Amino acid sequence: MMENTQSRTLAFDYEAGQDGGDSTPHDDAGLRVPVTEITLAPSPDGTPNEPVRVYRTQGPGSDPVRGLAPAREPWVVARGDTEEYDGRDRALADDGRGALRRGAATQEWQGERRRPRRAVPGRTVTQMHYARQGVITPEMRFVAVREGCDVELVRSEVAAGRAIIPNNVNHPESEPMIIGKAFLVKINANIGNSAVHSSIAEEVEKLEWATKWGADTVMDLSTGDDIHTTREWLLRNSPVPIGTVPIYQALEKVNGDASALTWEVYRDTVIEQCEQGVDYMTVHAGVLLRYVPLTADRVTGIVSRGGSILAGWCLAHHQENFLYTHFDELCEIFARYDVAFSLGDGLRPGSLADANDAAQFAELDTLAELTKRAWAHDVQVMVEGPGHIPFHLVRENVERQQELCDGAPFYTLGPLVTDIAPGYDHITSAIGATEIARYGTAMLCYVTPKEHLGLPNRDDVRTGVVTYKIAAHAADVAKGHTGARDRDDALSKARFEFRWRDQFNLSLDPELAESYHDETLPAEAAKTAHFCSMCGPKFCSMRISQDIRDEFGGARNQAALADAAAEGMAQKSEEFRAAGGDVYLPAPTLRP
Amino acid sequence: MMENTQSRTLAFDYEAGQDGGDSTPHDDAGLRVPVTEITLAPSPDGTPNEPVRVYRTQGPGSDPVRGLAPAREPWVVARGDTEEYDGRDRALADDGRGALRRGAATQEWQGERRRPRRAVPGRTVTQMHYARQGVITPEMRFVAVREGCDVELVRSEVAAGRAIIPNNVNHPESEPMIIGKAFLVKINANIGNSAVHSSIAEEVEKLEWATKWGADTVMDLSTGDDIHTTREWLLRNSPVPIGTVPIYQALEKVNGDASALTWEVYRDTVIEQCEQGVDYMTVHAGVLLRYVPLTADRVTGIVSRGGSILAGWCLAHHQENFLYTHFDELCEIFARYDVAFSLGDGLRPGSLADANDAAQFAELDTLAELTKRAWAHDVQVMVEGPGHIPFHLVRENVERQQELCDGAPFYTLGPLVTDIAPGYDHITSAIGATEIARYGTAMLCYVTPKEHLGLPNRDDVRTGVVTYKIAAHAADVAKGHTGARDRDDALSKARFEFRWRDQFNLSLDPELAESYHDETLPAEAAKTAHFCSMCGPKFCSMRISQDIRDEFGGARNQAALADAAAEGMAQKSEEFRAAGGDVYLPAPTLRP
Repeated sequence: MMENTQSRTLAFDYEAGQDGGDSTPHDDAGLRVPVTEITLAPSPDGTPNEPVRVYRTQGPGSDPVRGLAPAREPWVVARGDTEEYDGRDRALADDGRGALRRGAATQEWQGERRRPRRAVPGRTVTQMHYARQGVITPEMRFVAVREGCDVELVRSEVAAGRAIIPNNVNHPESEPMIIGKAFLVKINANIGNSAVHSSIAEEVEKLEWATKWGADTVMDLSTGDDIHTTREWLLRNSPVPIGTVPIYQALEKVNGDASALTWEVYRDTVIEQCEQGVDYMTVHAGVLLRYVPLTADRVTGIVSRGGSILAGWCLAHHQENFLYTHFDELCEIFARYDVAFSLGDGLRPGSLADANDAAQFAELDTLAELTKRAWAHDVQVMVEGPGHIPFHLVRENVERQQELCDGAPFYTLGPLVTDIAPGYDHITSAIGATEIARYGTAMLCYVTPKEHLGLPNRDDVRTGVVTYKIAAHAADVAKGHTGARDRDDALSKARFEFRWRDQFNLSLDPELAESYHDETLPAEAAKTAHFCSMCGPKFCSMRISQDIRDEFGGARNQAALADAAAEGMAQKSEEFRAAGGDVYLPAPTLRP
Repeated sequence: MMENTQSRTLAFDYEAGQDGGDSTPHDDAGLRVPVTEITLAPSPDGTPNEPVRVYRTQGPGSDPVRGLAPAREPWVVARGDTEEYDGRDRALADDGRGALRRGAATQEWQGERRRPRRAVPGRTVTQMHYARQGVITPEMRFVAVREGCDVELVRSEVAAGRAIIPNNVNHPESEPMIIGKAFLVKINANIGNSAVHSSIAEEVEKLEWATKWGADTVMDLSTGDDIHTTREWLLRNSPVPIGTVPIYQALEKVNGDASALTWEVYRDTVIEQCEQGVDYMTVHAGVLLRYVPLTADRVTGIVSRGGSILAGWCLAHHQENFLYTHFDELCEIFARYDVAFSLGDGLRPGSLADANDAAQFAELDTLAELTKRAWAHDVQVMVEGPGHIPFHLVRENVERQQELCDGAPFYTLGPLVTDIAPGYDHITSAIGATEIARYGTAMLCYVTPKEHLGLPNRDDVRTGVVTYKIAAHAADVAKGHTGARDRDDALSKARFEFRWRDQFNLSLDPELAESYHDETLPAEAAKTAHFCSMCGPKFCSMRISQDIRDEFGGARNQAALADAAAEGMAQKSEEFRAAGGDVYLPAPTLRP
């Protein structure tokens, strides 16, 4: 089905682009960026149609056992500001209680184990730091080609904190991407194993599946067995940045008892994950002791797991959240690996009733403070947002966040605009997601149909990702992002011209579109026929339109069109009839 | 699964409500209105939870062979302004070419055949007419109870043309409902057979299915065999208003050759459908000859079937659209049966590229003119809207329509906010639908996953209806409609309290929600357990929240809360630990 789709996936091959040997997007210095190029059939009149290039998240594909090539490593090494070191000692507890019991993880990573890398003493190796120094990195150049924008826009947005390029120096397999409101809206897919579900192989498969459908980043929220090893496997195979919530693993290390958590255990976990290559980490440092009572009268209290863990810790110890009190130390660690903060909204509303309340906005004030503290360390930051919000209150969320956080990228979960549709929450949340992205959210965290009900399977991941691609794309179009509508226009033209295969290939989910089409008209001939199952072989409205175009098309001057209508119609009418211009009733569609 | 759901479905039983024998909603005179009442389990602390009443579209249910009782007939008869008459002679051609060939429809309606009814000469029997006379009809009273509003609001909105109550005097089986922006947002489901698909029985089943999930009206867009008989079957079984597009059947009568269409054939078809009881009809009277060339340079031309048929007719004859030139005659017919216009947007855009263009808005100007012409006859009107519109241009559509048409109800198809997701167009369109309803669209025409690809089956109807209930409900909440959020709050409270069965029953699709839940935790015990599959039996964030509420809940004064935080925390902290307030790591969810 995809035989017309060419994917030009390249390694980071500086020179190849310069010889003009192919049309792969590249910059002046020849840095090439993988895209998916969809070739199109000619129009019925023989006019060729330009291929359409689509932003590609899928990466080059790889052997999941060996992992992807560390293509970005030369860029990191060339800067000369990092060093390899032995790294933290691996502990059995890194893989959780099951590993402790068994004395080993159930499965070990078989690919290469690179020594970890970090900044040499006194250096900061974040993209934000370089950007502020006026340095254009290859990562920025890659992003600029990928986004089709000027590299100076990339540098200046990163320098200002309005965009981030999450790529840990220890995740050289990743293709640089940017999260910021001046760029294409991105989406994240959550995956992760649990104590009772999924194997490492299944998680790697979900990662490939998510990036195939268009996930720009993936969060590994594993909390089950083999938590360290699963993450290793994912990182070594991921062409997109990987995010985590380190408190989940830290809690595993204290046997699930949050009151036993300490800064030291948490810090050790963060370093472990920095060395593995995690690109951004959710840190719930805004859940302050004094905010906890603000949630007492909510309908749904605290629904964030990280938020509730920290609220529980604060209550148990009557101390301020250790993520807040040790925030500058965290910044220092992140600065050495270029890990970005995703400042978690632990007090986000879990129901419409709790939206935009005192607890939520108090935490946002603190996230704004923390954003600026991280920026003082040249550490990249994005800020997480809700949740469940009535449609008319969605816009306020992003505008408030953008103002308070001086434009730091907003990364929101939906929001869901009603609570009454479990089973359809990919839809309830895509509605809110489109609205919030239109007004400036930079990345949308997907929601699957299983939200509130269970863990997503492979099909749910696909549905969630495609649904969020719709929201992100609709927002790009609404924002007037350059070229965003090109794919819509190409698909609509293909639809009008009955180029079925082009219509499938241009769609977000070609396989589903084709399978729905084939339920009614499975024959291969039906994919080249000038009709469809809604209207049947006796034609549909598209043909009338073609007749109209043949007569009046091209006269783009409206006065000329009006003249044509007023004067030329009698003659045209005769021509129309002479040309056999009967109007057939199509077989049924369901559109009046 | 639905054992906790009580449906109080009643006939039009004036007296029964007065004795207080049950809690069915009724007005002062005892007119009762069916609702679905969802009874809830008590909270964990034993506090009872009030039942939640849900607007019910399903009707009383019936034997599809005999049809529903004509419960509304006494109201019509009592007004004394209509008369029975013999009606138009039935013709074989009414059932299409197949019937002509065979000499009969494939199946005949077996239930009662009532003689048709129409206004006595000189009388107008529309709800608008009564409303303008200051008359409160039982239909208005029924609607007021159903909407939970004052009946004077109903009367005044109908009198002003800002709302319609579509109920043909020949469809006494229908339960009155209202379409207008001052009321709950409604949704329509399209069904209908085709030459190659579906039987009458399947269409009746789809009707029952659509109203079960919440369709407020149903359009029968049949164009295949047995077109008259299928419609008869649907009308006699429909508790909701039925809409049609008469030009489809008219075209069948001229063997599918639109250039052979005449006003006389069309008028005869309209009368046939008026006598059967069709409640509203899509009439593409705004497709004027001079507008046709405006579509010539569009990406997707004319995508409305009705619009293209009439554009083709105009071109073929070089005459003005006969629906426009005979519009006043149509009004006179509609006034005798109380059929409402649904003024079709035959030039609606079929792609983002064509949105809000000259052709679309030229037609809208004419629809505004026709609205006022219909109102001069006291005929009810709604106006149809697009289509495919980028998200940021959606609002302009409804605001422009509302202004030009003096607040006549807007009835829109989506709109779809991107063209690139065939297979997911229920979602692309629900996004636009929520936006357009928020700003005043009164009824949303659903879109199913099969849009652009094929004809919807039963599952698609369900998905389309539920998706549109989400959009309509989200808009009701966003508009601040009284009580709209009650169901959200009840469901969220049930979720927080782990009342799984209540959560299912309160959701738009209880069966799907339960089946997703059961994929992970199928045991019946899991539906009463205080945990879920995302967090597992060792608990989740909800419990921490309960602990917080137990300590701080009820202190709604923020100063008191702050005091509690500042002063009471040390003590509370000890209590928390003394009470065993350990914080467990839940098993994985996919939410940070």
